[in-house]
Amino acid sequence: MVDSRDVARFAGVSQTTVSRVLSNSPKVKPETRDRVMRALAETGYSRNAVARAMRTRRTGTIGVVVTRITNPFYPEFIQVLSQHLDRLELRMTLWDAEGPGESNAVEAIRQGIVDGVIFTTALQDSAALREALQRRAPVVLVNRTVQGLQCDQVTSENHRAGHMIADYLLRAGHRRIGLLAGPPEASTASEREAGFRGRLAESGLLLHPEFIRVGDFTHEHGHESVRAWFGTGSRGPTAVFCVNDLIALGALDGARARGVRVPEDLWVVGHDDIQMSSWEAFDLTTVRQPIGDMVETALRMLLARIERPDKVPEFCRFPSELVVRGSTAHHPAQRALSAS
Amino acid sequence: MVDSRDVARFAGVSQTTVSRVLSNSPKVKPETRDRVMRALAETGYSRNAVARAMRTRRTGTIGVVVTRITNPFYPEFIQVLSQHLDRLELRMTLWDAEGPGESNAVEAIRQGIVDGVIFTTALQDSAALREALQRRAPVVLVNRTVQGLQCDQVTSENHRAGHMIADYLLRAGHRRIGLLAGPPEASTASEREAGFRGRLAESGLLLHPEFIRVGDFTHEHGHESVRAWFGTGSRGPTAVFCVNDLIALGALDGARARGVRVPEDLWVVGHDDIQMSSWEAFDLTTVRQPIGDMVETALRMLLARIERPDKVPEFCRFPSELVVRGSTAHHPAQRALSAS
Repeated sequence: MVDSRDVARFAGVSQTTVSRVLSNSPKVKPETRDRVMRALAETGYSRNAVARAMRTRRTGTIGVVVTRITNPFYPEFIQVLSQHLDRLELRMTLWDAEGPGESNAVEAIRQGIVDGVIFTTALQDSAALREALQRRAPVVLVNRTVQGLQCDQVTSENHRAGHMIADYLLRAGHRRIGLLAGPPEASTASEREAGFRGRLAESGLLLHPEFIRVGDFTHEHGHESVRAWFGTGSRGPTAVFCVNDLIALGALDGARARGVRVPEDLWVVGHDDIQMSSWEAFDLTTVRQPIGDMVETALRMLLARIERPDKVPEFCRFPSELVVRGSTAHHPAQRALSAS
Repeated sequence: MVDSRDVARFAGVSQTTVSRVLSNSPKVKPETRDRVMRALAETGYSRNAVARAMRTRRTGTIGVVVTRITNPFYPEFIQVLSQHLDRLELRMTLWDAEGPGESNAVEAIRQGIVDGVIFTTALQDSAALREALQRRAPVVLVNRTVQGLQCDQVTSENHRAGHMIADYLLRAGHRRIGLLAGPPEASTASEREAGFRGRLAESGLLLHPEFIRVGDFTHEHGHESVRAWFGTGSRGPTAVFCVNDLIALGALDGARARGVRVPEDLWVVGHDDIQMSSWEAFDLTTVRQPIGDMVETALRMLLARIERPDKVPEFCRFPSELVVRGSTAHHPAQRALSAS
């Protein structure tokens, strides 16, 4: 079956460009769009072929496991996935890994209740997941990945994002830098942290232990940490990297609670570029992942895996980009950065 | 089968109190908790009995239809529902009514793919829903309701909430009042609007047509409306009621964009009390619905309906309360109000 990778190769463009054309993104130049449309026609690419194959032989239901759905990252993910599934005439069964969602999802594959599952929440030590893969259950990891696991995985350049943010803060002259880290078992948190600390260390900067706080991917984590740093008589960092946007929104609210001015007294940087990060209330500098492309690729991988359980696993890592807004005050440097 | 209503009657407490005990809420006094626990034991109440009945004879999957899942109201709803379903060992299939979700959900009941569906998004003219009810498909409406429809429905006192907010603004002396209304086909929007305008009219106040704007339940609606009201040279309202919190968050951001001070120049009131309304960034005065009780009641009704398709339909309307925060500046009046 022809997939978007084949179309990209045929048209001589990136897979991202093919995705953009398929989703009618305005970012594609007319001549590129024409080239991709021709390639789609000539290679015989069809999403509906997948849908037809699925309908005739399967339950037509795809599982998805998220964690703490009130983190706005997941609804945005689900919205995109839902649109793709509607087009393919497939259904979605949803589990929250805060409860027994992960093992219930694995059990549902075993019982033939869903055709396969997209995990967004894999942890390094996820036993249910390892067991599913031993049985060659159709499973794709997206967002969080697990090193050494033989399965299809989709993520973004988390390590490089950490680098990018460290460079950005260093070039702006920050030395008192804070890190609001996430659960170390989550690859997204650990890779962003490693990239960030690695680049700081290369520049001879070791973070002060007080300025590193580990917590969940929650608003509370950011809120409590910033309030603790800026308590009576204490002198907090001048810039903080939060490993996801929800933590960063909490940090911004913690700064409001303490009367700490952003960006004059504290720069705040997040990761994900969820919709509300661009709202005036936050105006958060962050890292944007191509979430639409990530979801589409994960779904394509899962459908291919359902058809061909013995397929070689793919690992796909999408580029991400720094988006500078009002929570930091160094736009010119960023323009130079993104041009480099 | 004994349900939580019977337990409440037996213990001589409200159904809400029973729910709180079941969810280990800290809000219940020890002696009340003891009374409820005894009533649970003596009436033989068991959630697992429902689960067992379901498991033996059904698919074990409940459908839920939401609309625009990036409205934070829905993830909060899904989170509570997901916890209940986990306990009952049931699964959730999710549809977004932005796409063909509503008719797909109805079709899934017909095909026996789900045992029943919770609709949060019913509109007055929903054809798929009417057809499902004609076939006596197990369906419960929660949040939005449809007048005259013979089916189980759960909502909150939307009309009274409109009254409450009108009273609150009038007592504070506001006369230039704005309304950011929602889609009139959605009962939540139309009831809140009717309650609000009705009470203003009783006080002899007719809203200026410029100060009524109709739009979707989106951040953009609030954002654009406030920016339009406070454009160059124009004099906007001094208070605005937004029929849901997401619109109100947009209104607050629109005020920020125009340099309009909240609450000094403009009071903003929402409805729902989603989690982020209490964040420092918004600090929004709003109306809280007992979302946990609404979800639990809807699920109980659906499970009962699946067991007994000919059961008399129930209509349950929960009370809601005004929560005063920093986006309005009249705390003492509110205290008097809630005491009255």
